[in-house]
Amino acid sequence: MDRPSATRSQRPTIDVDGRRRVVIEAVMPEIDAGRFPAKRAVGETVRVEADIFADGHDALAAVVKYKLLPARGEEVPPPHSWGGAGRSPAEGQRRRGRAAGEPPGGPSPGWIEVPMTPLINDRWQAEFPVTELGRYLFTIEGWVDHFETWSRQLAKRIQAGQDVAVELEVGARMIEEAASRATSSDGDSSRLRGLAKSLRTSPPHPAASSPSDRAALAAGSPSPASGEGKTSPASGEVKELMLRYADRSFATTYRREVEVVVEPVKARFSTWYELFPRSVGTFKDVERLLPEIAQMGFDVLYLPPIHPIGRSHRKGANNQSAKAGEPGSPWAIGSEEGGHKAVHPELGTLADFRHLVQAALEQGLDIALDIAFQCSPDHPYTREHPEWFKHRPDGSIQYAENPPKKYEDIYPFDFETEHWKELWQELLSIVLFWAEQGVRVFRVDNPHTKPFGFWEWLIGELKRLHPDAILLSEAFTRPRVMYRLAKVGFSQSYTYFAWRNTAWELYQYFTELAQPPIREFFRPNLWPNTPDILSEYLQAGGRPAFQARLILAATLGASYGIYGPAFELMESRAREQGSEEYLDSEKYQLRAWERDRTDSLRELVAIVNRIRHENPALQTDRGLRFHPTENDQLLAYSKSTPDNANVVLTVVNVDPHHVQRGMVNLPLDELGLDADRPYQAHELVSGARYLWNGPRNFVEINPHSMPGQIFRFRRRVRSEHDFEYFL
Amino acid sequence: MDRPSATRSQRPTIDVDGRRRVVIEAVMPEIDAGRFPAKRAVGETVRVEADIFADGHDALAAVVKYKLLPARGEEVPPPHSWGGAGRSPAEGQRRRGRAAGEPPGGPSPGWIEVPMTPLINDRWQAEFPVTELGRYLFTIEGWVDHFETWSRQLAKRIQAGQDVAVELEVGARMIEEAASRATSSDGDSSRLRGLAKSLRTSPPHPAASSPSDRAALAAGSPSPASGEGKTSPASGEVKELMLRYADRSFATTYRREVEVVVEPVKARFSTWYELFPRSVGTFKDVERLLPEIAQMGFDVLYLPPIHPIGRSHRKGANNQSAKAGEPGSPWAIGSEEGGHKAVHPELGTLADFRHLVQAALEQGLDIALDIAFQCSPDHPYTREHPEWFKHRPDGSIQYAENPPKKYEDIYPFDFETEHWKELWQELLSIVLFWAEQGVRVFRVDNPHTKPFGFWEWLIGELKRLHPDAILLSEAFTRPRVMYRLAKVGFSQSYTYFAWRNTAWELYQYFTELAQPPIREFFRPNLWPNTPDILSEYLQAGGRPAFQARLILAATLGASYGIYGPAFELMESRAREQGSEEYLDSEKYQLRAWERDRTDSLRELVAIVNRIRHENPALQTDRGLRFHPTENDQLLAYSKSTPDNANVVLTVVNVDPHHVQRGMVNLPLDELGLDADRPYQAHELVSGARYLWNGPRNFVEINPHSMPGQIFRFRRRVRSEHDFEYFL
Repeated sequence: MDRPSATRSQRPTIDVDGRRRVVIEAVMPEIDAGRFPAKRAVGETVRVEADIFADGHDALAAVVKYKLLPARGEEVPPPHSWGGAGRSPAEGQRRRGRAAGEPPGGPSPGWIEVPMTPLINDRWQAEFPVTELGRYLFTIEGWVDHFETWSRQLAKRIQAGQDVAVELEVGARMIEEAASRATSSDGDSSRLRGLAKSLRTSPPHPAASSPSDRAALAAGSPSPASGEGKTSPASGEVKELMLRYADRSFATTYRREVEVVVEPVKARFSTWYELFPRSVGTFKDVERLLPEIAQMGFDVLYLPPIHPIGRSHRKGANNQSAKAGEPGSPWAIGSEEGGHKAVHPELGTLADFRHLVQAALEQGLDIALDIAFQCSPDHPYTREHPEWFKHRPDGSIQYAENPPKKYEDIYPFDFETEHWKELWQELLSIVLFWAEQGVRVFRVDNPHTKPFGFWEWLIGELKRLHPDAILLSEAFTRPRVMYRLAKVGFSQSYTYFAWRNTAWELYQYFTELAQPPIREFFRPNLWPNTPDILSEYLQAGGRPAFQARLILAATLGASYGIYGPAFELMESRAREQGSEEYLDSEKYQLRAWERDRTDSLRELVAIVNRIRHENPALQTDRGLRFHPTENDQLLAYSKSTPDNANVVLTVVNVDPHHVQRGMVNLPLDELGLDADRPYQAHELVSGARYLWNGPRNFVEINPHSMPGQIFRFRRRVRSEHDFEYFL
Repeated sequence: MDRPSATRSQRPTIDVDGRRRVVIEAVMPEIDAGRFPAKRAVGETVRVEADIFADGHDALAAVVKYKLLPARGEEVPPPHSWGGAGRSPAEGQRRRGRAAGEPPGGPSPGWIEVPMTPLINDRWQAEFPVTELGRYLFTIEGWVDHFETWSRQLAKRIQAGQDVAVELEVGARMIEEAASRATSSDGDSSRLRGLAKSLRTSPPHPAASSPSDRAALAAGSPSPASGEGKTSPASGEVKELMLRYADRSFATTYRREVEVVVEPVKARFSTWYELFPRSVGTFKDVERLLPEIAQMGFDVLYLPPIHPIGRSHRKGANNQSAKAGEPGSPWAIGSEEGGHKAVHPELGTLADFRHLVQAALEQGLDIALDIAFQCSPDHPYTREHPEWFKHRPDGSIQYAENPPKKYEDIYPFDFETEHWKELWQELLSIVLFWAEQGVRVFRVDNPHTKPFGFWEWLIGELKRLHPDAILLSEAFTRPRVMYRLAKVGFSQSYTYFAWRNTAWELYQYFTELAQPPIREFFRPNLWPNTPDILSEYLQAGGRPAFQARLILAATLGASYGIYGPAFELMESRAREQGSEEYLDSEKYQLRAWERDRTDSLRELVAIVNRIRHENPALQTDRGLRFHPTENDQLLAYSKSTPDNANVVLTVVNVDPHHVQRGMVNLPLDELGLDADRPYQAHELVSGARYLWNGPRNFVEINPHSMPGQIFRFRRRVRSEHDFEYFL
């Protein structure tokens, strides 16, 4: 081996600030090392955790620093340099590409600091609230707390009866240094100087109680003189002053500023109803249906594309070639009557649509539009912008295909075109056009067939103008792709829920979704059915299957939706054996639904949605826990608020055919229930109340009466007369 | 809510390269998003994995690109820009702080590419070898492979009997484009042009077999004409040419260049013996002992500090105040006779030491020195550089303490001194001084009481001059701190092994250490005892305890060490009840050991070390698997080489008092053993051979004969005469 000469011509350089001894790592929530923001909804908190430690045995202090970025335009630079330990500026900042010299879009709110507290094993935490729509940044600053180290050691020295004279002088000097950092205008500086002085003013031998008493006063440590191990009343103030004027010149700031995107509450908690407006009639007819939909407890009404439909290669009933007069698929967008910014004339006018949006809002319903970036061969773009499509050697535009299958009624955009920038701008303008009509919720069709970078840009631009926009990603594809779409900005995502039907599958999948970091960016929206998915379970399971899937979707997911009236009318006929396509699918034809049929699940839907609205635990995907049932067909899980004030247990019999019995095993401690006292299990669908005892309780579920039970637990309290009440 | 106006004054900017559609994420091995290098030893491979995917359903291609950085000085810039998707240069590069304009230290080796292959679920992998000491970089490049997409789709079209005339033209044009990228000097360009031409030269209807045959030839897809689904012989060449001249203009390069530090083989696989030279006599006396130590199978001989020892507050036998004539603790470094660059006169001269180093190397032994950055009150530094120490208000230098305990014989350095840069330079010069005497292995005392940034800088500078240096971190502290020291550059680390004595504890701990990313940077070095640690298990367990801990250390860890002769002579007397300190510890006094005692474990040590040298599976910490034994006192685990050519199973009875029996359950498949045929279990300590059958086999271990068994598995093979042999 070639050993290089050991003679050095010059001293090596040192390009770090060697006195920044604190390390900050493993920060949560942080996604892909800060490449993507974490997501929150207005009113939530961000619980920040990090490993924070230093060499040696000194005490540390740390704070989370956070701020809201101005809603529009560019943020101003942070008030001071964040280049801890010689690092270059946070990656996140470069990513946002702040243009130099551009005027800030609003006042810089500055950083707000929250002290962190140690958990265990060098893990620290703090929480901060997010109260505004938009983007927050947070980072962490940590430093060696010499005063706290001194204080703890002093207590031990005094306990051991050591002479602390020199130590008191060490402390006095530290306090004087802090005093010199305190602003002279307020009284802090003189209070500190007074304290330093008092540490020096009497005989330092520990046998004399007074100095150690004073030391304890300064240090906030137990006073051996009082003999009770109590902290002296003044200690809190001293500690607080010394923390306020701590010497942070060698503090370490975490190398990145981590972004959190804050969206409307509906991004987290939403209840969707999908409906083909043309089956109802016009926008005006849909308007008449709004009260009924709102009364069922929905807050988003999602409409498949409402644009003119192409005629070339139009699809007819059951995906055959269309015969004359057939309406075609709404996803074959564009005809001579217009494209993505036009309304199908048979549904009404743009004014009618705007009216519908406003009428819906009055009922608490957001209209969600379908964003399907593709064209029929008759779309105006095909003539006006042929350069946005791929061309075949024979000059024709390349239609969609999945060889050997051909979809000649659809032309995909060519995102590799040289004119991609114009294409991106135009597609953004479509979303902005509908936002200008009052739409804030968008269901995006097949986002996984357009580049991720495109979505990241489009959603960023949309949210810059409309931070209250919510986008649902309709990507039924491989997990990495679905997660990436969520990372680049989709508020919610369709899931594999429709195909997870056994208790084990559901447990596995929802456990995965609840793991960090997935839970920080991927918000599931559960659909038991869609116009594309009539699952085998629903085809074969009858009424209990629909009921079970409804209860599962509504309690496993803070957001869920159904495609109706097919769902509540339990439409279960598939086009053919082995297919998940509906027979006579509304995708290709109009359907006249008998909405008032007596066997409709409408009432159950309303009950389940009322339960969701009354129980905050069901309005978030945090706090989900699965519980063993001793029966493979019984799935049990609870959701609870962080304070356990609201705890909801759901037990579902996933076998739609047979009665199932089992024992539900609950971790009473974690759920805030007392192991030694009975508690009430209030079944919210039926209204029945049971008195349960201990961690193991019997359940029996007959799917033919109701395949799922939703319990709210109520703890027993005693009144002044010793009557029992349950809260 | 304040909804901003929806009117935009200008089009939003697009600051990404929107046609780079491929995403590369979750790269392994990468530590803390590239903040720290992964570790390898010369001759190992780096298995790179990443999630690689794009929108849509196109085929992808990806390569790992790697290069060795020049051994000294600064690397030259990479041959072309790595700023994929508008990102700024890789973080890793900034961290190394290349000085602009500095001349490169050697020729740039350029990037070497290795094609990646898909595993499952968008996970891809490739491997590259590391053959040189120093630093490697790797990154990943991925792109949409339009030709492969075309080729796969063409096969399906042909299978479905479709007219492929237009498709053949599409392919011909792609091949022509590749031809235009091929260098004209070689024949690739004309070969490609010929191929494109042949795709066009006959009637394109699929009913005519020739064009589809030609298509298959071009595409490498099964030829329907031959009817056998075989790939045509030419296809490999076409694919390879099209990959070589692929259009990578929209390729995505991973945003970071990931560093791998490559260290000597001994960093991975080493066998340490610790010995107090003063108990032996002088360096010359130690030299006479070298053959015996080498014959026991050790390859590192670690000596506690060899420097002059302070006299002030000197410690005597059993940590009392020293009486006249007592030698003091070697860790109280420095006297008027010199400091960290001097040799204790009673051990010999610096020339004697250099002679010892060379004599040891001739026996295959590296001398490891102890780096203890602390001073006795008599160290020359205390007079020459008082500014490197903390001073108390009374003017005295602050001694070490852990209140209320005081260690007045030790002055720690003050790493917060204003003169920290000079201190760092001096401490580096100490290590370089000993490196210049031929020392390459260093055991660093209490690194966790010096700043992490200091170690990162020191190890970086040391390795820049001596890339063959190996540093062992002696930090017995909290897990995060130990891991961080490994991240900043220590080659090996002491562990909690000495306190993990039950089978469950050992399983848990070594499973944690084998997880990524820990295994990528933390190399455990297992010590059953040290001069500071005489564990309760060894105190109480007698001879079986020492044997069991030896076998565990030697087979669980690719690196392990013992402090001898205390270990092989089974010294088990503690200073007092509940203490892990040795009675009459060599830390404070000389000990005359009876090395040739008949009950010495010397022979077992030699056998175990021979087994380690003969079995490559034991020379790495990769490939460790634990196996159930149906007995809590029996721990079973195997290590195997990636090809399963060498599989070693160890079973240890951790109960030093009683015979234990159990069934060892082996995953035969993973170990490359045939479930249907017997295999030989060759017990390597005793030499006994057993014929085992199936996954479940009985073991019985009497700790009083030998508490551990080490089996090498040999598969049965048949000779031409049907005799049975085991390989």
